[in-house]
Amino acid sequence: MIIIMGSEVTDAEIGTVVKKLENAGLQANISRGIERTVIGAIGDERKLTPEMFTPLPGVESAMHVTKQYKIVSRESHKQDTIIDIGGIPLGGNQIQIIAGPCSVETQEQMDLSAQFVHEAGCRLMRGGAFKPRTSPYAFQGHGAEGLDMFRKAAEKYKLPIVTELMDARQLDTFLEYDVDVIQIGTRNMQNFDLLKEVGRCNKPVILKRGMSATISEWLMAAEYIAAGGNHNIIFCERGIRTFETYYRNVLDVTAIPVLKKETHLPVIVDPSHAGGKAWMVAALSQAAVAAGADGLLVEMHPSPCDAWCDADQALTPQELKKLMGTLSAIAGAVGRTI
Amino acid sequence: MIIIMGSEVTDAEIGTVVKKLENAGLQANISRGIERTVIGAIGDERKLTPEMFTPLPGVESAMHVTKQYKIVSRESHKQDTIIDIGGIPLGGNQIQIIAGPCSVETQEQMDLSAQFVHEAGCRLMRGGAFKPRTSPYAFQGHGAEGLDMFRKAAEKYKLPIVTELMDARQLDTFLEYDVDVIQIGTRNMQNFDLLKEVGRCNKPVILKRGMSATISEWLMAAEYIAAGGNHNIIFCERGIRTFETYYRNVLDVTAIPVLKKETHLPVIVDPSHAGGKAWMVAALSQAAVAAGADGLLVEMHPSPCDAWCDADQALTPQELKKLMGTLSAIAGAVGRTI
Amino acid sequence: MIIIMGSEVTDAEIGTVVKKLENAGLQANISRGIERTVIGAIGDERKLTPEMFTPLPGVESAMHVTKQYKIVSRESHKQDTIIDIGGIPLGGNQIQIIAGPCSVETQEQMDLSAQFVHEAGCRLMRGGAFKPRTSPYAFQGHGAEGLDMFRKAAEKYKLPIVTELMDARQLDTFLEYDVDVIQIGTRNMQNFDLLKEVGRCNKPVILKRGMSATISEWLMAAEYIAAGGNHNIIFCERGIRTFETYYRNVLDVTAIPVLKKETHLPVIVDPSHAGGKAWMVAALSQAAVAAGADGLLVEMHPSPCDAWCDADQALTPQELKKLMGTLSAIAGAVGRTI
Amino acid sequence: MIIIMGSEVTDAEIGTVVKKLENAGLQANISRGIERTVIGAIGDERKLTPEMFTPLPGVESAMHVTKQYKIVSRESHKQDTIIDIGGIPLGGNQIQIIAGPCSVETQEQMDLSAQFVHEAGCRLMRGGAFKPRTSPYAFQGHGAEGLDMFRKAAEKYKLPIVTELMDARQLDTFLEYDVDVIQIGTRNMQNFDLLKEVGRCNKPVILKRGMSATISEWLMAAEYIAAGGNHNIIFCERGIRTFETYYRNVLDVTAIPVLKKETHLPVIVDPSHAGGKAWMVAALSQAAVAAGADGLLVEMHPSPCDAWCDADQALTPQELKKLMGTLSAIAGAVGRTI
Repeated sequence: MIIIMGSEVTDAEIGTVVKKLENAGLQANISRGIERTVIGAIGDERKLTPEMFTPLPGVESAMHVTKQYKIVSRESHKQDTIIDIGGIPLGGNQIQIIAGPCSVETQEQMDLSAQFVHEAGCRLMRGGAFKPRTSPYAFQGHGAEGLDMFRKAAEKYKLPIVTELMDARQLDTFLEYDVDVIQIGTRNMQNFDLLKEVGRCNKPVILKRGMSATISEWLMAAEYIAAGGNHNIIFCERGIRTFETYYRNVLDVTAIPVLKKETHLPVIVDPSHAGGKAWMVAALSQAAVAAGADGLLVEMHPSPCDAWCDADQALTPQELKKLMGTLSAIAGAVGRTI
Repeated sequence: MIIIMGSEVTDAEIGTVVKKLENAGLQANISRGIERTVIGAIGDERKLTPEMFTPLPGVESAMHVTKQYKIVSRESHKQDTIIDIGGIPLGGNQIQIIAGPCSVETQEQMDLSAQFVHEAGCRLMRGGAFKPRTSPYAFQGHGAEGLDMFRKAAEKYKLPIVTELMDARQLDTFLEYDVDVIQIGTRNMQNFDLLKEVGRCNKPVILKRGMSATISEWLMAAEYIAAGGNHNIIFCERGIRTFETYYRNVLDVTAIPVLKKETHLPVIVDPSHAGGKAWMVAALSQAAVAAGADGLLVEMHPSPCDAWCDADQALTPQELKKLMGTLSAIAGAVGRTI
Repeated sequence: MIIIMGSEVTDAEIGTVVKKLENAGLQANISRGIERTVIGAIGDERKLTPEMFTPLPGVESAMHVTKQYKIVSRESHKQDTIIDIGGIPLGGNQIQIIAGPCSVETQEQMDLSAQFVHEAGCRLMRGGAFKPRTSPYAFQGHGAEGLDMFRKAAEKYKLPIVTELMDARQLDTFLEYDVDVIQIGTRNMQNFDLLKEVGRCNKPVILKRGMSATISEWLMAAEYIAAGGNHNIIFCERGIRTFETYYRNVLDVTAIPVLKKETHLPVIVDPSHAGGKAWMVAALSQAAVAAGADGLLVEMHPSPCDAWCDADQALTPQELKKLMGTLSAIAGAVGRTI
Repeated sequence: MIIIMGSEVTDAEIGTVVKKLENAGLQANISRGIERTVIGAIGDERKLTPEMFTPLPGVESAMHVTKQYKIVSRESHKQDTIIDIGGIPLGGNQIQIIAGPCSVETQEQMDLSAQFVHEAGCRLMRGGAFKPRTSPYAFQGHGAEGLDMFRKAAEKYKLPIVTELMDARQLDTFLEYDVDVIQIGTRNMQNFDLLKEVGRCNKPVILKRGMSATISEWLMAAEYIAAGGNHNIIFCERGIRTFETYYRNVLDVTAIPVLKKETHLPVIVDPSHAGGKAWMVAALSQAAVAAGADGLLVEMHPSPCDAWCDADQALTPQELKKLMGTLSAIAGAVGRTI
């Protein structure tokens, strides 16, 4: 913690800060500059918050100098973590493309989807049974019944399944259907009770970035899961909210190298929700892999025009297959495989 | 719904759109312009989504022309709704200032807070027992025990209490302690399962705006609560996330007149979380009341420097009292009372 | 300047930083914490930039502790500056409402506008002769001829005139027509050559905030003008760009108390460009005055529906008059006059 | 133009809109829906603005259905435009990497830079002689003298030079030193007088995206240049401003496929200013090429730690060389060359 004192600080004001630091078990280093005096805290600053100091008289600002996340940080664990999903490694040299429809609609749609996912060469499948929808009047997903259809369809091709958990009370159902990867959606990135709950199970968790979450808040959200004992966390960049209205979100590719530097955990990208249009998906997928992503979460539907939700962002099976070819070449260019 | 066709549209492509509209029970009005053809849907467009049309060949874009929210809309209910909170009206001519500490710390702190809230002339009290914190290692609130302290403290001055609900599983505890107003925090604005749950009880709900929620998403979130049967909804603007780093959030005062136009429900403002610093609270509170807010949610602590969280944004009891005087004059200037 | 060294810093790396500081004529204070080492620079840090240190091995981050603006800072000049505009004081106890049309259209429109501005009780008039338009095919303003019409119309009521300068090459024309206040528009806030040019004349300058400029960049832009010798600078908040699409910009009222703290110069608000709709102007104007603004820049047109640009944001003469009444009451509530 | 009328519209209100359309030489198509009436304009809507209609009674909103840009649009010109820069093609199958230092410092630094640019296999060189700096007290560039050094250094390797123009009054100097590509910086994207000026010469122009410019505003800014007669325009994405504070800007890769769809002109990317840190440049460059960029603008300095500005974002000559290898492989993966 560094505490910056205003230009007309008094000795008494400095003394109050020092005493507060000492009461918390830390020591103070005082550096008197020409225009500002800076007080550095020596000791375990995780006990402190800037707000403990900023309301004190004479204090101009206060900030942490150490990262607030621990378990998920690269500092605490140098090697890349590889997460095992039913035998499929995520986070290593091989890049994983997780494909499938936005939502589980019918058994037939899921069977076809599983077949196309498999044929395209993907090793994991996605699909939503519980759907977060902006409107209460829109299709809310088939729920448990949807998980059942999904499980059956994926079984045939031995595809581990990825699906979204929206409420802690549904977790038992997820475990019952043996969901392989639990997805926490963008709107729940800071649903702390939900994070604590998935932190207590040992399933891999895909943690999507909140629509306007900073990298630091995202890492702290992961720390909530990790602090509960579950270290199988996969970050998923899915576009952030900005002023631009041409596309739904702005895919933040810079987050990829930054997360790879800050954390040892895998980083994947959802190009479908980022752009919001199928014709943007190839370019965004290619960019993500070129920038170092460990995987992608791509929407594919056997017949996009008939999809019950987000119809304009799903690839056709043919488009997915073609994309896999290009991605494979890009993976090779950056020393990886698909 | 309006569907705009690209510049080189064919009759077959127009025909597909028209057929899709007719299948959904609507009719089509076709307007052939020089550079674009526009198809208007006639009928109940709430069954439609733009995504049903945008993936079709020849379609350039599609958009709703009617609002997607119904129960909460001003169109469906012309008069201002006044919500009764234990006898205190919110949404009418009298502006309500809801004050209290960020979090429930001790019985003594709550007793003192209640006394100061009452003495300042406020009629409702706030305080957090369940706290959403960015870090899993930070104080997470006293939980049910905190509700108990809060209830006891507020009792003495007959102050209805406002406190945040973070998880549907806590709702029974809230009802047990007879919480007067349930607050849904910014991170849970689109926690749809939680919204549905509070939609089933009949307690007034303060719905804080998501950090980067649009006005339209916010109204739709309220519609989730309303669709469940609970129409006692109070919107609370608390600052939005932008590029500016000097202050925590940017208080969006424009949201006040806009919501008053779009909805019949009351609109209050949280100036404390918006700015994030106590010295900004007076100016922001004054701006909110001058712009037409029906109330404020203000943090006050008997001794801000000792507060367990957000210490730098709480007013002192004296500052609150002084602010009440200024607000009263401004309320008068816009034809209202405090 | 504070330089934060990474967790595994070596003595040699610390030595390099210290030497670079000493070469620049400053001294170093080294504070070795448990997880980080912090180096504080003692001396005139305005010679330094963080980028001088961040590329050095072992450095994690570097930041200024003193403000980079000097002349415009409240630290360098405690009292509020009152700017004299042809005898009208701006920045003192009296709040100034500057009203007029978006653009100069005809002599008759300007004559009528001047009359209505005067009749509403405003003491300064605005109007654009050189217009920044998003499209090259839109009306670009009457130029010098427009200044002539404006000057003639304002003359009759002795209203000082405010108008926008878009290009340094037009400055002579502005001086020729004796424009009273030069406005620098939002798109030119960081047109540094233009700022230097107006810094060399002694006319009052209204410096509008860039669409996505931080408070700090805005103060630095003003410092460009001040560094040239012209200290007659008026800050004008006009709404910032965010994700919200319901209104054109988000009026940032928090900027008002923040600027009043950081600078001694006057702060005004443009509620018309902020919201972009006439029906929002009253609420935003009231909020601005209640939050401490020293003035407003309001669009009024004799007949808004016929305005050549921004027709939907101009008040009618009657609306302006009514607004002046409310603003006067709010000014009274915060101890000021209009 | 589509005009949406409110739910309680009267025939008289519809009549007024229709009349206004007819007066402008267009026809009206009226579509009466259940909740809204929609009026479509038939004819050349470029004469119209939404603001002509939104202030009229009964009108809820109005919007263009055709694009406001013409010359730069893909609709008006189907094939990709390839711009010839002293014999080097930009916009075709071959991707161009434009490298060089942030600013011209000394003749020796420029000579070395040119050599390293050439040795890395790049065919164009960048460098700033006129520098836009946030602070008036920072190094503002060597000006004309800098152009002279730049020209001399680039001559030896026949590298066409790219440099920023900040003020229309400097254009003659640029032509005198025969600058090959004029760069318009992010802060000047809507400096309309400057755009008009470069529109009158026939030099290729790199138009950087404004910090918070929408795609549509950016295309309109290019239209300003094109409308003057200069069609040699290159779009340069350089990161946009968001809420994220970890990096300077967010590189918007989605802009690449979107621009390729909307315009026939080349699109390049500046990965150095986007991230703001040298260690991010490789990942961002790779992402840009994989997403379809026609070129890059990369900062390289013979000795980054000694650079006079933006020292932390320049690559070393060795890093640039290595990057060129990876980019070449990615280019191959997407069917292009470097």
